[in-house]
Amino acid sequence: MPLSRERLKTYAKLKQKKYRSLQKQCIVEGVRAIRDIVAADEDGYIIDAILHTPGFIHDEMHEKLVITVRERGAKVYEVGEKELERLTETVTNQDIIAIVNQWSTSIDTIVHQYAPRLIVAADSVREPGNLGALIRTCDWFGVDALLLGKGTVEVWNPKVLRAAVGSMVHLRFSEDVELEKELPLLRSQGYFIGGTSVHGGSSIADTIPAMPAVVVFGNEAEGLSHGVLNVIDELITIPKYGKAESLNVGVSAGVILSAIRFASQ
Amino acid sequence: MPLSRERLKTYAKLKQKKYRSLQKQCIVEGVRAIRDIVAADEDGYIIDAILHTPGFIHDEMHEKLVITVRERGAKVYEVGEKELERLTETVTNQDIIAIVNQWSTSIDTIVHQYAPRLIVAADSVREPGNLGALIRTCDWFGVDALLLGKGTVEVWNPKVLRAAVGSMVHLRFSEDVELEKELPLLRSQGYFIGGTSVHGGSSIADTIPAMPAVVVFGNEAEGLSHGVLNVIDELITIPKYGKAESLNVGVSAGVILSAIRFASQ
Repeated sequence: MPLSRERLKTYAKLKQKKYRSLQKQCIVEGVRAIRDIVAADEDGYIIDAILHTPGFIHDEMHEKLVITVRERGAKVYEVGEKELERLTETVTNQDIIAIVNQWSTSIDTIVHQYAPRLIVAADSVREPGNLGALIRTCDWFGVDALLLGKGTVEVWNPKVLRAAVGSMVHLRFSEDVELEKELPLLRSQGYFIGGTSVHGGSSIADTIPAMPAVVVFGNEAEGLSHGVLNVIDELITIPKYGKAESLNVGVSAGVILSAIRFASQ
Repeated sequence: MPLSRERLKTYAKLKQKKYRSLQKQCIVEGVRAIRDIVAADEDGYIIDAILHTPGFIHDEMHEKLVITVRERGAKVYEVGEKELERLTETVTNQDIIAIVNQWSTSIDTIVHQYAPRLIVAADSVREPGNLGALIRTCDWFGVDALLLGKGTVEVWNPKVLRAAVGSMVHLRFSEDVELEKELPLLRSQGYFIGGTSVHGGSSIADTIPAMPAVVVFGNEAEGLSHGVLNVIDELITIPKYGKAESLNVGVSAGVILSAIRFASQ
């Protein structure tokens, strides 16, 4: 299918957060990420269009991918490298990108339809790489739902997608969640609400939250917001045996989620 | 002290790995990282020179830092922003950088002088951000020594430093370690040698290595090298409860080191 200038322009706007929000779409780069989405997107809802260079389909696996996507109803455009470059952010050359419909699940649907046992919430996690690591860690430990609080970096940011899009299609997540409002509701439904902190909380080595539980991870520099601190049941701390000032949020999540999973085996 | 063109040129070469190896120095950017080094470097061995903009010392804390460094025998240069820019890699403007002498400890010294109980080894960890996260995680969990295998990214790479220099001054580490040769020696001295793998090993949820131990983390994509696989006692795997393909090396280290620490409390 030929790609009109007009449409290329519309797609290129998705490099800006503002237009991603307006159009409810985003750009996913690279064959690996796109393959992950295709594997999870059997009903063809997520991928709106694929743009690839002529060279891309010389590989048989790649050609198959394009055929699958087309069969599911997505638009497929063959474009030049220059045009593709207008849509990409990464330094390394990509020969395929996808225009993807944003997907997420409302918190009400998550709670009432899926009755999640283990929930993670992100309270103002600002750095895209950190959110990406958190998402992948949640996926590894089979977290049932991820609540992205209002101050958290946009999950459709290219850096988040690059780090974690393969896990985003595995996880259920809600965006723009008002944690101060939602956490008390979850508590009233029997969830334990644990906040994490670099110091001052109960040691995760001794006290392991029982499920159903929500574990809230805070901002890299400032920790949990005041509003969230007011509505948690308990503060959880990873005991420190050395001298580091802090742990990455992904690492903290790994330690706490593994402790919860290992204890309930 | 005025900075000669010649010296600025020499310092700028430290942006290249080749010259970092030759001069056994590197560039550390930003006041926070430099403060961490100064705190750990009481005998003034590490910092060779400080370069700062005139504006930097308007802050009293900053001025104190410069005075401390000068008193310990480092060279201090006041330079223009343009000159500083020639030495920095990060996008955000820094108003101070340090020229730092590379420090590391030979594996023999580490083993014979410090009798470490918990050692982490990095086998071809290639991505600077990953090595940085691994280092910080090791620092948090009080790892006694870190062995950086031959194929691992250079620890003096600006991206590693940016992520972890504050922890590098806390940890003992060896560079360019021939793991295939050294791990058997450590084993003969009573160390348990555990390799990590995304699947196929004993679950860390059930079997926790006893100290003294070495835990080896492998390459992001390929895992442990064949040479290392041949010399380990046991393969350790973090059980997966969801669908993620892999975990960041820092996250894996957090899960395994916390399990070891919590079990030996």
